[in-house]
Amino acid sequence: MTASQIGETTLFVCTTCRTQLADAASDQPRAGARLLAAIETVPTEQRVGVAVVGVECLSNCNRSCTVAVTAPGKWTYVLGALDPDLHVADVLTFAQLHQRHEAGLPAWRERPEYIRKNTVARVPTLPAQR
Amino acid sequence: MTASQIGETTLFVCTTCRTQLADAASDQPRAGARLLAAIETVPTEQRVGVAVVGVECLSNCNRSCTVAVTAPGKWTYVLGALDPDLHVADVLTFAQLHQRHEAGLPAWRERPEYIRKNTVARVPTLPAQR
Repeated sequence: MTASQIGETTLFVCTTCRTQLADAASDQPRAGARLLAAIETVPTEQRVGVAVVGVECLSNCNRSCTVAVTAPGKWTYVLGALDPDLHVADVLTFAQLHQRHEAGLPAWRERPEYIRKNTVARVPTLPAQR
Repeated sequence: MTASQIGETTLFVCTTCRTQLADAASDQPRAGARLLAAIETVPTEQRVGVAVVGVECLSNCNRSCTVAVTAPGKWTYVLGALDPDLHVADVLTFAQLHQRHEAGLPAWRERPEYIRKNTVARVPTLPAQR
């Protein structure tokens, strides 16, 4: 099966995440909203197979910013400690690796180093969905 | 819709989790395996609607022990920092609240306090699965 025959991966981006820095007390957009905007600014040909969806609160406030990568019948990954100014490419690389792998399990050596170190959790697909 | 008409919630229990304490260097069963065994020891009538499934590594090693609570069409929750000797009842209470709620979103005030403080992440269901 080729990557183009496998369904889309959904990239949920928490829009309510704050950084540990200034935006908590300011009227600036939250870091999570900036991360979503930065991802959506990437040309679509650089994020083929990845559906980007903003969501309010992924409950990983201690290690924000946060995204979740998932698809039907695949493992779900939660990635944290993301900086909208630094980690957009890493997030999209991981999401595309997830999309291309039939079980949603990107090879460890192929994952961006920052994502390896800041994977918050993963959850298997449900047996009935396999 | 009554709770008995809603499908089962699956409780994934990481069996490879270590504690921060002694089992890392000993030949004792890992804390995650002990957590799974402790949950399975609970009489089935006290965990109605919850399917318990052991899984190797939920990638939350920094905040082990870890479980994930999920069901088709519902939010997925990852819970961490669990002690097999202390938190079995809290985990099962949360899983049953998740099972009874149509969207898998237990009311905050009903969640056990320890679970409130040690929720690692949550992930929405995929739009297509709703």
